[in-house]
Amino acid sequence: MGARTGQQFLDKLDSMRPHITIDGEVVSENLTEHPAFKNVARTYAQLFDLQHDPKFKDQLTYPSPTSGDPVNVSFLIPRTIEDLERRRAGIKVWAEYSNGFLGRSGDYMNSSLTALASAKKWFEKADPVYGERIEAYYEMARENDLLATHTLIPPQVNRSVSGSEQLGGQLSARIIEERADGVVIHGARMLATVAPIADELLVFPSTVLRGTPEDAPYSYAFAIPNDTPGLRYLCRTSLHNGGSHFDEPLASRFEEMDAVVVFDNVFVPNERIFMLGHPDLCNQFYSETGAAALMTQQVVTRTIAKSEFFLGLATEIAEAIGIDGFLHIQESLAELVVDVEIGRALMRAAEVDAKLNEWGMMQPNWPTLNAARNWYPKIAQRFPQIIRTFCASGLMALPGEADLASDALPDIEMYLQGKSLTGPERVKLFKLAYDASISGFSSRQALYEYYFFGDPVRMAGALVSSYDKTPMQQRIKDFLARED
Amino acid sequence: MGARTGQQFLDKLDSMRPHITIDGEVVSENLTEHPAFKNVARTYAQLFDLQHDPKFKDQLTYPSPTSGDPVNVSFLIPRTIEDLERRRAGIKVWAEYSNGFLGRSGDYMNSSLTALASAKKWFEKADPVYGERIEAYYEMARENDLLATHTLIPPQVNRSVSGSEQLGGQLSARIIEERADGVVIHGARMLATVAPIADELLVFPSTVLRGTPEDAPYSYAFAIPNDTPGLRYLCRTSLHNGGSHFDEPLASRFEEMDAVVVFDNVFVPNERIFMLGHPDLCNQFYSETGAAALMTQQVVTRTIAKSEFFLGLATEIAEAIGIDGFLHIQESLAELVVDVEIGRALMRAAEVDAKLNEWGMMQPNWPTLNAARNWYPKIAQRFPQIIRTFCASGLMALPGEADLASDALPDIEMYLQGKSLTGPERVKLFKLAYDASISGFSSRQALYEYYFFGDPVRMAGALVSSYDKTPMQQRIKDFLARED
Amino acid sequence: MGARTGQQFLDKLDSMRPHITIDGEVVSENLTEHPAFKNVARTYAQLFDLQHDPKFKDQLTYPSPTSGDPVNVSFLIPRTIEDLERRRAGIKVWAEYSNGFLGRSGDYMNSSLTALASAKKWFEKADPVYGERIEAYYEMARENDLLATHTLIPPQVNRSVSGSEQLGGQLSARIIEERADGVVIHGARMLATVAPIADELLVFPSTVLRGTPEDAPYSYAFAIPNDTPGLRYLCRTSLHNGGSHFDEPLASRFEEMDAVVVFDNVFVPNERIFMLGHPDLCNQFYSETGAAALMTQQVVTRTIAKSEFFLGLATEIAEAIGIDGFLHIQESLAELVVDVEIGRALMRAAEVDAKLNEWGMMQPNWPTLNAARNWYPKIAQRFPQIIRTFCASGLMALPGEADLASDALPDIEMYLQGKSLTGPERVKLFKLAYDASISGFSSRQALYEYYFFGDPVRMAGALVSSYDKTPMQQRIKDFLARED
Amino acid sequence: MGARTGQQFLDKLDSMRPHITIDGEVVSENLTEHPAFKNVARTYAQLFDLQHDPKFKDQLTYPSPTSGDPVNVSFLIPRTIEDLERRRAGIKVWAEYSNGFLGRSGDYMNSSLTALASAKKWFEKADPVYGERIEAYYEMARENDLLATHTLIPPQVNRSVSGSEQLGGQLSARIIEERADGVVIHGARMLATVAPIADELLVFPSTVLRGTPEDAPYSYAFAIPNDTPGLRYLCRTSLHNGGSHFDEPLASRFEEMDAVVVFDNVFVPNERIFMLGHPDLCNQFYSETGAAALMTQQVVTRTIAKSEFFLGLATEIAEAIGIDGFLHIQESLAELVVDVEIGRALMRAAEVDAKLNEWGMMQPNWPTLNAARNWYPKIAQRFPQIIRTFCASGLMALPGEADLASDALPDIEMYLQGKSLTGPERVKLFKLAYDASISGFSSRQALYEYYFFGDPVRMAGALVSSYDKTPMQQRIKDFLARED
Repeated sequence: MGARTGQQFLDKLDSMRPHITIDGEVVSENLTEHPAFKNVARTYAQLFDLQHDPKFKDQLTYPSPTSGDPVNVSFLIPRTIEDLERRRAGIKVWAEYSNGFLGRSGDYMNSSLTALASAKKWFEKADPVYGERIEAYYEMARENDLLATHTLIPPQVNRSVSGSEQLGGQLSARIIEERADGVVIHGARMLATVAPIADELLVFPSTVLRGTPEDAPYSYAFAIPNDTPGLRYLCRTSLHNGGSHFDEPLASRFEEMDAVVVFDNVFVPNERIFMLGHPDLCNQFYSETGAAALMTQQVVTRTIAKSEFFLGLATEIAEAIGIDGFLHIQESLAELVVDVEIGRALMRAAEVDAKLNEWGMMQPNWPTLNAARNWYPKIAQRFPQIIRTFCASGLMALPGEADLASDALPDIEMYLQGKSLTGPERVKLFKLAYDASISGFSSRQALYEYYFFGDPVRMAGALVSSYDKTPMQQRIKDFLARED
Repeated sequence: MGARTGQQFLDKLDSMRPHITIDGEVVSENLTEHPAFKNVARTYAQLFDLQHDPKFKDQLTYPSPTSGDPVNVSFLIPRTIEDLERRRAGIKVWAEYSNGFLGRSGDYMNSSLTALASAKKWFEKADPVYGERIEAYYEMARENDLLATHTLIPPQVNRSVSGSEQLGGQLSARIIEERADGVVIHGARMLATVAPIADELLVFPSTVLRGTPEDAPYSYAFAIPNDTPGLRYLCRTSLHNGGSHFDEPLASRFEEMDAVVVFDNVFVPNERIFMLGHPDLCNQFYSETGAAALMTQQVVTRTIAKSEFFLGLATEIAEAIGIDGFLHIQESLAELVVDVEIGRALMRAAEVDAKLNEWGMMQPNWPTLNAARNWYPKIAQRFPQIIRTFCASGLMALPGEADLASDALPDIEMYLQGKSLTGPERVKLFKLAYDASISGFSSRQALYEYYFFGDPVRMAGALVSSYDKTPMQQRIKDFLARED
Repeated sequence: MGARTGQQFLDKLDSMRPHITIDGEVVSENLTEHPAFKNVARTYAQLFDLQHDPKFKDQLTYPSPTSGDPVNVSFLIPRTIEDLERRRAGIKVWAEYSNGFLGRSGDYMNSSLTALASAKKWFEKADPVYGERIEAYYEMARENDLLATHTLIPPQVNRSVSGSEQLGGQLSARIIEERADGVVIHGARMLATVAPIADELLVFPSTVLRGTPEDAPYSYAFAIPNDTPGLRYLCRTSLHNGGSHFDEPLASRFEEMDAVVVFDNVFVPNERIFMLGHPDLCNQFYSETGAAALMTQQVVTRTIAKSEFFLGLATEIAEAIGIDGFLHIQESLAELVVDVEIGRALMRAAEVDAKLNEWGMMQPNWPTLNAARNWYPKIAQRFPQIIRTFCASGLMALPGEADLASDALPDIEMYLQGKSLTGPERVKLFKLAYDASISGFSSRQALYEYYFFGDPVRMAGALVSSYDKTPMQQRIKDFLARED
Repeated sequence: MGARTGQQFLDKLDSMRPHITIDGEVVSENLTEHPAFKNVARTYAQLFDLQHDPKFKDQLTYPSPTSGDPVNVSFLIPRTIEDLERRRAGIKVWAEYSNGFLGRSGDYMNSSLTALASAKKWFEKADPVYGERIEAYYEMARENDLLATHTLIPPQVNRSVSGSEQLGGQLSARIIEERADGVVIHGARMLATVAPIADELLVFPSTVLRGTPEDAPYSYAFAIPNDTPGLRYLCRTSLHNGGSHFDEPLASRFEEMDAVVVFDNVFVPNERIFMLGHPDLCNQFYSETGAAALMTQQVVTRTIAKSEFFLGLATEIAEAIGIDGFLHIQESLAELVVDVEIGRALMRAAEVDAKLNEWGMMQPNWPTLNAARNWYPKIAQRFPQIIRTFCASGLMALPGEADLASDALPDIEMYLQGKSLTGPERVKLFKLAYDASISGFSSRQALYEYYFFGDPVRMAGALVSSYDKTPMQQRIKDFLARED
């Protein structure tokens, strides 16, 4: 089949029977019609359609090496720097279409699968069969253009002990039975974003595993269809409040759902198991295979588009109400410019200094990308703050689409006009500002970026320990020893 | 009549016929039943009822000097430090009941009127009749326990020119006709909070006026009933999304509406006019009368209650999920403790160093309160950030009240329990955290505090220029001249 | 004798024979002449002289209850709030004389001794003799107006283990022999500020002690004369570079030395031992006696004077070069105003809400002061940054006193004048700015404030655990249980 | 001649007769022996010697296109990206040798001259003779390996008016006479760094010039020998306090002097004048020629070396005292890692996306470098703060070289050892930390970086106005217009 159309995506979605609870109701069919999912499903369908749009087709797809069908470029195993650039060019199309507000567009998990498949030999360290399975799964996902969600961290019950120690190990998803044809999983994990509209669920190694018998049940990697029996999703309430594209321009399009994942005696057949046991390998799952690098390439491409969005938005607002001449406004705009340029430079430098990894994949320079993913979560918090500071009370003196169609229109035209915009235009712009800086949608975005790769406080430790500081330390030693 | 009951407040509200546009509809009656207003009206009714609650009555009211009826303590003209403390004790009751989330409870504008009435002689500088009118209005408001909103700033059309210069002066509310029996006002102002449920609208001097003919139409102070002909309010959409107290614990109670105020040839009769012309006096309206000081006493009392709320909430969360032992969590808790103590100390010091002002009112020490109102807007931005950092993905792995009543309950009990809470208890606590740090309600609160007294960048300049720095400068001069 | 004169202080100093190493030399006599100590000794002498200055005498002293001689007011055991205010008034004189740059003026340790003596009964929990000794020592110190330094923390060798565990316990000062007439101490402690010009060294409990045999040798409190045999001080190099009061206005007056303290088999006689063993009591030494509260009253009084100094300095600079009209300059000035007012309010509130403690001492409200000492270390870091930002290149385009007396004078008069100052005046002002924001002296001040009470990261944990958060937590619980 | 040796540099310096006032003395000869200049002169000599060191020769030099002699690579006019990389490789040698602490090594102004000469045609817009002169001057500088200082900003007398308006225009250096053979300059400028040891002084256009008669005297660009009659330098006092390399490891090597520049009727001959009048061209002097880009390439290369130094230093300290396992220490280390990687990425991206400019020079991508120079001044302020936080009291418990040679050695060996270092080693390391975070030298470095390219507040405005924000604005416009 290859790259799907939006309709194909929606049809497949409607044919699935997942177990999804939201607002006290179980939804298992007609997902494309449910008010909490239909809009984001439609947006995702648009992404799929772009693959067939003559304007973007060449950027978004490449010919499958097996079928020859066009498949999404995020499945391309990069062998050269040009391949990496090609991947980025495709990822960028979706990122700019969604202005970076979709955190789980298919190319994210596709990038992970692509790196894992390219590291087939790494899987073979455990067992040759794992290498074959991951490759087969990757090819299946690529040829069918599947949308995967994933779930990583243990339930947040008691953070003073490790995930596997909470409540005597009765909480985290774990193997409770090993059978000849597969394993049975029981327990929960957090947090599957975009789960209700996904085709597949990837369940890869989580947190740090010890090589002890107690941790053995947590050493695994597998993938299952989203409507596997026993698999249940428990959703939060939607952040789209039902408003129009005018009133909720972001939430009405980009509200990806988050869900707790419950495994209730879920059977995983052997062909979907990519690793069992081998805690050491599990702990290196993302780093050694190159999956972290390819995923981060996708993420940074997306966050650049988001930073650019905020720079564009802030500039439009500043001009609209005539504040662009103030020094303190310019300082905030300069901050956004710098953020955009830093993001771009980190991406660019990681690409041009990419190197082939052990498995023959051209891997973007990891220390650069690792810095990028430690840097962005913090600066992203500033974006809504800047927008709020620019708009001030304009975010509250804000009627909506229905008001434009009412007798209030003359008042809006008169009193809500901008320096360079009519009243309705300014209201439309400020609705966007509102949805980017005030709405629940906007706050969830800030939270999401902050914790995207994990707790920044913990990530700092990981960055420091993995980073080669010896050349700098040697410089200090040499300087202290200098005799002049 | 004196202090009203909740029912009296609601009855009066239902008898009014204001012109309020929200979501494209004009609402002019049954305001207590409108979904956007009924909940906050009910909460305000509870505040009024507390005046008659045996537990709080003595704190919240004092006997009117004219009628002898109990009236709200925020109307008490303080003559002694004990009076100030009495005022604060009463204000604190409402502040703690609402945990600081109600920015326009009646005591706020009452405090303003109280100071203005006590400064009757200041008004007489312009004309003896103004002194009589402000006093009479104050007494009427006190005896009828009226709820006032107010509106201050010009429309935000083009901030590169002054409010009165925008669009050739055609935007800001201004006097367009002076008649024997009053004046006619036309134009708009921003931003009347709690307008839909108010009895009265106060329209006091705004921004800095020059003594030029061009600025004359903007030199005034008056008050009108909320359903005065020609007065129109244009609301934003509600931040309460219709959820229950469980799901939206703050927004379902404390969502005060904001509205643009449009004066369409509004006639203001003489007895409601407290100042006309006298731009110099207009510019000193808040500072010279002591109104700024009494209003800020109310505000600081309220914001202390809010800081305490966040400290309490953060502590509960930290214990609930077992993160209270981490150093970086303790740093954030310590930050909240320090904020609470600073707020309290500023209030306390302003009281004990209060002095009688020129008009015989015991005025809290202004430099202290002025510092408080420059300090709080910035630190308040940290509160939701801290809550988010504590809760992390717990804010997204968050089912709601309906889910508790569904088949999902066992999963919630198992996988969403806390270290010290059952699943449902933890969900309830995290819903509160969500409404304090993620929801549109929470973001509007942060924005509201940031701009409460005006743009902090501008306020800084005002603080510096009004502050007596000469003793510190003299210390520098003396030190430079020291011969030792 | 009572309050000393400067000359009496200097004479006593010259009669002492401490063992002080600085810049490779051992100094044991003529300390008042040593270039590294003479200036600060002179400044301290001025402080003592102020006790006899008719202008300040009444603030700085009170009649000794035993001798009737005037003694320093920091020895006054406060029994009333007025006593606390009296103490503060006296402390303020020295603080303003030194603009807060002297961290160890006598009133600091005096405050500690005063509280300890007032808590005689607390000492008696261990042994009645300790109560008598601490009282006797306090009285001796008061009547002789002694200047004490103290030393608290273990050597900084390996912070990954506790102080008593470093190098098998061979580093920290500890009891190595218990004799009938006293104990023998061996090991080191950091960091005795102002040690070279002190009369006495106080060695009180440090860090957290466990009730284990291993920690027993570290459970003690004693005081010894500064020239006790076996006691050695190892100084850093001086931060006064030898310049004049013009060129180094702060360092040439206020450079207090810091020293490592080495105990080489130091014998401490029984009468100077205030506690031995009793790790539980040792751990409460500062908190339970009220010593922390009285010391912090002194510190906060001092730091207010310092904040005021920076506000005055920044204002003078801004006016001198005509930058006071810029918005971003005003923001920094406003920040300093707010800091001054917060400091004052915390002090004031702690006083008016003081309460008698268990030992009959009027103790300033501790949670308020505890917040103050957690708040100041961080904001103090901003002061030199603000000064640098104001002065910019003016801190580098900065000739000195010798240049004013040279042929360069006309160039200085012409090209280094300010908007409101002559060239020489501006140079003098900027030399002060330099010494407050660029010099090693200024950086050491910032470091000193940051770590004054210990590592802020650790202090945060202590603040949180000692603070009563239950009322705020109860508010949350009540709110969650509210049915309305 | 080509690239000089250190000795050649020193000999030339000793042959010059500039007019330099420092500490009240005029120094005009034997500059290489003056205590304030000799150490930095020696360090500069080492830089020159590196040009002849077999290890670095090929990186630091290239064959002159005219003489064939090896000349410094900073004179290479880049025509290709490889040329840019070659320039950076050479610049990096000096930057790493000085760990980024030398702000005015020759390659800085060389880079400026190189770009200017390559933009010969730009100069010809004013007059063909200017093109010839700048080229000739560049070649002369290159072949003689001259060290230039420059001076840019007007005296800081009254910042509320423009430089040319201060004191009626009597302060800033200006043309007071135009003669047939040259011009006469009178007035002052700030701030010539490294002036006392420079060969030449470059005086290029400053601030923004208006095309008015009043601004005509300020429209010029020229270069003069450092000992031109009438040229006077007025120095600040040295930040090297005379200590050894052990005690002042940075200041004793890298203390570049700053000086006010006074032009007292200085005659500039025609051949040294590169521009006269043409305020429009003067305003574009750095941007249009590419000089800003090449200078910033040098600066960013230098600041990367400095960031790396601080990362290395912080890591060494953390390991030395066993604090590397603490989470909050790791956060600071991670911050430094991120800073290093961002700096590198900005440099790398600017290079790979370089383009030929109008004059045929391969110019690094300016928006990227412009972001870099707006970003660094702020983050550089954190470096000394981090070092202080790591070292804490260890920066004060710090004896020196003389103490190591004294009887205090055993105490140092015992009590000042580190976890992984002997006492003397730790003292040496901490002396370096001290000179990087506490000393006047370190503070001047922080100030210098902050204001390197001008006031960051003003630079922000320039960045924003020069940056092409239209693509981002278009994205917002498109999104608002999206119909889906």
